[in-house]
Amino acid sequence: MELLKEQIREVARVEKGNVLKVDSFLNHQLDIPLLNEIGKELKKRFQGEKVDKILTAEVSGIAIAAIAAQYFNVPVVFAKKTQSKNLDQDTYEGEVYSYTKGQAYKIRVSKRYLHEKENILIIDDFLANGEALQGLREIVVQANANLVGAGIVIEKGFQGGGKRLRAENMRIESLAIIDEMNESTLVFRDDKADLKADPKAS
Amino acid sequence: MELLKEQIREVARVEKGNVLKVDSFLNHQLDIPLLNEIGKELKKRFQGEKVDKILTAEVSGIAIAAIAAQYFNVPVVFAKKTQSKNLDQDTYEGEVYSYTKGQAYKIRVSKRYLHEKENILIIDDFLANGEALQGLREIVVQANANLVGAGIVIEKGFQGGGKRLRAENMRIESLAIIDEMNESTLVFRDDKADLKADPKAS
Repeated sequence: MELLKEQIREVARVEKGNVLKVDSFLNHQLDIPLLNEIGKELKKRFQGEKVDKILTAEVSGIAIAAIAAQYFNVPVVFAKKTQSKNLDQDTYEGEVYSYTKGQAYKIRVSKRYLHEKENILIIDDFLANGEALQGLREIVVQANANLVGAGIVIEKGFQGGGKRLRAENMRIESLAIIDEMNESTLVFRDDKADLKADPKAS
Repeated sequence: MELLKEQIREVARVEKGNVLKVDSFLNHQLDIPLLNEIGKELKKRFQGEKVDKILTAEVSGIAIAAIAAQYFNVPVVFAKKTQSKNLDQDTYEGEVYSYTKGQAYKIRVSKRYLHEKENILIIDDFLANGEALQGLREIVVQANANLVGAGIVIEKGFQGGGKRLRAENMRIESLAIIDEMNESTLVFRDDKADLKADPKAS
């Protein structure tokens, strides 16, 4: 998605520890028109697929999923990271290993909000090692729902998550895949959808 | 806002400890068309006010703020509850006392994303004791920005927050104010905006 890549090139910052800071539009401040374009593009990528519900994880998937859901005309459910008194006791649980914190945590969805045979599209902001996506898939499997695929805003293609999960037959559509990244370079993978949209490429 | 009150009457559950469970549409599963109506109503309530940015707090304010921002044509910034490596070190901080946990925590916004003289509208899901709203106001004050007011989805009018903050001249527009609530009763405060919209009331 060219508009997204431009935005990343222009305003994202790479900080030590391979942290790509996109907090000016995706993670802290939210650029709502850009999120709308992301939502439209995700709808296009999953055109023709039956989607009944969008599943994401708190915190940074929520805004993207909510805006995108407008193009799918479906509700969103977001998995919770903390066991709070506001969450039902009866939940589906996925485990997510955090490389940052060096430990695993649970994400949970109340059994009220995911049902057998529902067609679930996962939407999330980042795909790196694939841990969050794997935890969300675990929840879909527990619910006996059908995983349509995952729509990701930014994939760090040089980390193993996308490759591993695609090899396990998960359909993943990432709107920008970064193949190389350091404090001075940012290399995006060529994107078939963008090439098709570009008349010079046909 | 009549549609919202109907939704609360129909699907909200009151659980022990005065917890109003609205997780079927607001806090866990998200009813996107309803959030759009909430966004439109907030825009109507603040009609004529100059708003440059919407400020909310993670987690449950994010979806509401993102959808509402489409009607204000402004970006959203959400205050973070955890000090993560993804957050700048240079932040505005507000303190929020949590009655549930019996302790205070900090919410933070990077200084990059709030500026002097910006007109800030706070949007949040709940107003009860007013602690979150107070913490968000603290952040706006630190930034030397101008607080336009606060748009709240559900106010627990029987708790003191709204009354106290209005007495301190904060403009608060709550789309549903609950004056009495227990496991069998839910009493809403009459709502001038709803009365005006109802031809029987004129």
